Amino acid sequence: MNLTAGLRKAAAFDGDGMALSCGDIRIDRRTFVDRVARLAAVLRDLGMAAGDRVAMLALNGQPYIEFYFAVLWGGGVIVPINARFALPEMVEQLRDAGPVVLMVDAHFAGLGAELAAAAPSVRTVLHVGPGEAQGGAVAGEAAMAAVRPMDDALRGGEDLACLFYTGGTTGRSKGVMLSHRNLWANAVVTAGRFGFDERTVTLHAGPLFHLGAGARVFTTAVVGGAHVVIPRFTPQEVVEAVARHRVTTVTFVPTMLGMLLELPDLDRYDLSSLNLISYGASPMPEAVLTACLQRFPSVRFAQSYGMTELSPVATILGPEDHVADAPRRRLRSAGRPVWSAEVKVVDADDRELPCGDIGEIVVRGPMVMQGYWNKPELTAQTLRGGWMHTGDSGYFEPDGYLYVADRIKDMIISGGENIYSIEVENAVGSHPDVLQCAVIGVPDERWGERVHAVVVRRPGTAPTAEAILAHCRDLIAGYKCPRSVDIRDDALPLSSVNKVNKAELRAPFWDGRTRQVN
Amino acid sequence: MNLTAGLRKAAAFDGDGMALSCGDIRIDRRTFVDRVARLAAVLRDLGMAAGDRVAMLALNGQPYIEFYFAVLWGGGVIVPINARFALPEMVEQLRDAGPVVLMVDAHFAGLGAELAAAAPSVRTVLHVGPGEAQGGAVAGEAAMAAVRPMDDALRGGEDLACLFYTGGTTGRSKGVMLSHRNLWANAVVTAGRFGFDERTVTLHAGPLFHLGAGARVFTTAVVGGAHVVIPRFTPQEVVEAVARHRVTTVTFVPTMLGMLLELPDLDRYDLSSLNLISYGASPMPEAVLTACLQRFPSVRFAQSYGMTELSPVATILGPEDHVADAPRRRLRSAGRPVWSAEVKVVDADDRELPCGDIGEIVVRGPMVMQGYWNKPELTAQTLRGGWMHTGDSGYFEPDGYLYVADRIKDMIISGGENIYSIEVENAVGSHPDVLQCAVIGVPDERWGERVHAVVVRRPGTAPTAEAILAHCRDLIAGYKCPRSVDIRDDALPLSSVNKVNKAELRAPFWDGRTRQVN
Repeated sequence: MNLTAGLRKAAAFDGDGMALSCGDIRIDRRTFVDRVARLAAVLRDLGMAAGDRVAMLALNGQPYIEFYFAVLWGGGVIVPINARFALPEMVEQLRDAGPVVLMVDAHFAGLGAELAAAAPSVRTVLHVGPGEAQGGAVAGEAAMAAVRPMDDALRGGEDLACLFYTGGTTGRSKGVMLSHRNLWANAVVTAGRFGFDERTVTLHAGPLFHLGAGARVFTTAVVGGAHVVIPRFTPQEVVEAVARHRVTTVTFVPTMLGMLLELPDLDRYDLSSLNLISYGASPMPEAVLTACLQRFPSVRFAQSYGMTELSPVATILGPEDHVADAPRRRLRSAGRPVWSAEVKVVDADDRELPCGDIGEIVVRGPMVMQGYWNKPELTAQTLRGGWMHTGDSGYFEPDGYLYVADRIKDMIISGGENIYSIEVENAVGSHPDVLQCAVIGVPDERWGERVHAVVVRRPGTAPTAEAILAHCRDLIAGYKCPRSVDIRDDALPLSSVNKVNKAELRAPFWDGRTRQVN
Repeated sequence: MNLTAGLRKAAAFDGDGMALSCGDIRIDRRTFVDRVARLAAVLRDLGMAAGDRVAMLALNGQPYIEFYFAVLWGGGVIVPINARFALPEMVEQLRDAGPVVLMVDAHFAGLGAELAAAAPSVRTVLHVGPGEAQGGAVAGEAAMAAVRPMDDALRGGEDLACLFYTGGTTGRSKGVMLSHRNLWANAVVTAGRFGFDERTVTLHAGPLFHLGAGARVFTTAVVGGAHVVIPRFTPQEVVEAVARHRVTTVTFVPTMLGMLLELPDLDRYDLSSLNLISYGASPMPEAVLTACLQRFPSVRFAQSYGMTELSPVATILGPEDHVADAPRRRLRSAGRPVWSAEVKVVDADDRELPCGDIGEIVVRGPMVMQGYWNKPELTAQTLRGGWMHTGDSGYFEPDGYLYVADRIKDMIISGGENIYSIEVENAVGSHPDVLQCAVIGVPDERWGERVHAVVVRRPGTAPTAEAILAHCRDLIAGYKCPRSVDIRDDALPLSSVNKVNKAELRAPFWDGRTRQVN
């Protein structure tokens, strides 16, 4: 259960093979292990003891992958800083996590000194990757050249491996404590389910400060695969990287996959190396998924459902359910529990509900987080009875497939009826003129809340609210249909992890009022 | 990391599906979990507390699989008794393990009272499966009907799960302590490597008191697959069970696979459900493997190398190396380390050796045993430096494939040269008239040891020692060739786990003398 063992094995048996590519950089496996062991030694010399936190503020790139493994190799704890946070939010995260070292790349080099001054635990700012160290930061490449590579500290099992901060769109950010065991269990179970091996080449397209992309770093490493990194997601960079590095697998959030499909010159790239596209983090509009299946007929598709607190995968809707003769309704399911997970649906008193009844999804298994950093009460509440309470509502069908109805906080209660926004979004989103949509609850004097849809129209179309409503009435019950529709050209606001930021969409409606959330 | 979670999941989602078949018995998943939870409650009522051992003396059958899961479900520790032991050996094992309950099936019902009298820790003998309880034993089926199913005790992680006794052919038997984590890690890694899922139907053909078969029980359970059990291995029973229950995978030791191929009416059975045959526990003669690949062209073959102390798999030679266009010499390799294992080859001072140099194979990872029960010094010696010392000699090739040269104790030292018996056996065994062979070291005044071959001739042939020697001289160096050949019709003696018992073959030669073993 050691997250660095895969690196050593890969280097021992295929030292010349590719470990990591990023743009024009290509690092072989032997060099990669050497760099990791050197960076670990630098961190140790800077005072990182066993269990000490080390923070990273960077765009995706070679240094980010090296940060992951070097901190673990040296016995420390990874703390990725959300690069889309505003400065005060970064300071808050640093003060909460208490890292001894703050690593920054060239993009954030100018912020290092200011952040370190505001976060008393930070003794050193370490500049990594290209560019000049600024404001008194230690120059990483020079320091790595000057040290002897250290032996792996061999932390593992229940030892804390990382703090990933979550919850940016809903109140204060929380540090999720994941152990080596947590991440290792997720890695082997995911690798096994998807058939990864040492020929796997993973494109990390999402932000590496988020576990959605981060977990795939470990899944790739445990099988001895290779990493491809792009600085930040653009559809163009994705297809260029896939074609150039013969990428075999990539994970998207649905928003990103939708953008990819809209790329005008998509067909000009050789994407034949791809054999698995997985998606997750938010539900997939059926229209996007259908288009994907048509566009990439030889690629296996899979959905992962989970959250940072679950390291992060709890259920998978596998490739076998993404084929033409699978029941179409299953495409709306989150799939079945992974080997390591027990999943059930419970009522407000934690009693298990029968199939078909909607309740809170709870999960048990070796992938469940150790807790929230510095938040014992919230930890106890979230993990009560030995089950991780996800805050998502859903139900099981008798065939064992889980359907996620909604984030409980996104559920709309109108006239006493529970309305699941994803169901309404599926209806709205299937209108041909709708490019993107989000459905939220807004205050209503009579019904408590009413259903409001925000729609981004497809370029060159001119849908009306009436047409969209008529379309919905053919698909879902009347009480679920939007009472109002806002049609716009601008993309929906996204959270730091590329989910639609419903809190931002809701804010103007609820200004000065409190929304009741169970 | 709970070994019983897979049962609950399978029952919840496919309660009517097959959990276990044995002869005419078919138990669905819902019933199976109910029986396990009841048997656990019976054991608890008989005094099994958390961490208490429960022994089982039985042939393979439904009760054996239930024993595995019920003991774990109730919080106890599995202790399978080697059913081929003589009575004094059984007593020795019971006295060492100290179980509170001894379970027996109909086959061993008559021994229960005598064993319990000799092993003071045993408070109760519990009769399981068909037949009448004897000598004061509690009748299991009646007791199970009378109790309420208990909730899973949810032991897991580092909690001790089992004591499997090993070493029958080499000195005193030792209890190998494996935790839930050990077995779970092996299960998910093996399942992932072989692509098992809930459609997997595993035939347990080897004895369930040995971890070679036992580990597959957990691998099958973790993915929600089904078990097929035959009372004991015969080639006829294997093919009948495969055809009847649509078995998808089975594990053999090479001896068993060789016997299967000799079955005269093999072609009369529908074995089309088989998609993976794995083999292990001892090296495979190339002639047998070649015959297998010809006979079962649509089946994937894989070799596992490991031992009880490794839960048990350390390396796998996968299906991709058992195809016509793979390098033929790799068929003599044990493959590459599994995802969870770090493997290296070291000299007598535990220094890592370069590729190609023969030394002791050592292994590190979450599958390494906790230790030997009641043997702290031997444990410390075997696990020194954090690596499990296998006692096997071998070497790596630069492509990362491990070659097991020999059990260190089976290596022959003749005139100062190390001779690896498996290499000689490969040469002898490739003679067309040789059905089975074993090569051992026997005392020699001049050379210390000399190479002696014991050959079982193929029915209807009459090979001579001279012909076999001439054959060997074409294949291996002269000093490795047998100096004497014993040709016989009877099968070679097997150990309790179906390996050729070389200690027994060596004994008459060494009578009264001590053989030097490093």
